[in-house]
Amino acid sequence: MIGCLNHVAIVVPDLREAALKYQQTLGAEVSEQQELVDHGVILVFVQLANTKIELLHPLGANSPISLFLERNPAGGIHHVCYEVDNIYEAANVLQEMGAKILGDGEPKIGAHGKPVLFLHPKEFFGTLIELEQK
Amino acid sequence: MIGCLNHVAIVVPDLREAALKYQQTLGAEVSEQQELVDHGVILVFVQLANTKIELLHPLGANSPISLFLERNPAGGIHHVCYEVDNIYEAANVLQEMGAKILGDGEPKIGAHGKPVLFLHPKEFFGTLIELEQK
Repeated sequence: MIGCLNHVAIVVPDLREAALKYQQTLGAEVSEQQELVDHGVILVFVQLANTKIELLHPLGANSPISLFLERNPAGGIHHVCYEVDNIYEAANVLQEMGAKILGDGEPKIGAHGKPVLFLHPKEFFGTLIELEQK
Repeated sequence: MIGCLNHVAIVVPDLREAALKYQQTLGAEVSEQQELVDHGVILVFVQLANTKIELLHPLGANSPISLFLERNPAGGIHHVCYEVDNIYEAANVLQEMGAKILGDGEPKIGAHGKPVLFLHPKEFFGTLIELEQK
């Protein structure tokens, strides 16, 4: 079912400082900041040769990553995102297998404008997994 | 400096169960278990289309990931590994920029038989970063 690793998401306490560090110290290609108001995050992409890293910071009062940053004030790796060909088929298969999809179980439009779902970290050995339709 | 994402390393409390779950629930291609006695880990590779995930479990009394599993008994994402063309050049650049390389600052032979170094999570916003020579 899962294809490419679409991205690794890392929550950071200071987005500008983190973007500079990845750019200057690691020599990485880093995008401009993008505010995704509907998703409660501000982010930059670190573009690698085969995938990308998303450096995220909470945006607004109800950001879904605020609690993570409270619990991990230095920052930390938040989730990994795998691509699937068809997110609705994937959701059906996962539900048949008893995997717990976060929320109401239905795919939602994610930060890249494509349908996504999240699997509970308890299901996957402490790792929050996002699946995104290609 | 950094090129491809070589792998994401995830520590799991039960390697067999985790391997099965990635294989059966996520439909991923999972390798046989490999014991890396010198590195204190037993692992499987989850081969993705563009990179790989390493599911790790401690091996032996002095495993470098035992403490992580104690602190995160459910498991969790342990580190990300980026490829560089020349690890010794990378180490020099990093030291010139004041980045803290774990250990004595010299690259060591890593789990894939190639020279690697690790950057302290405090340097990189809570993320442990491995650099591996291509």
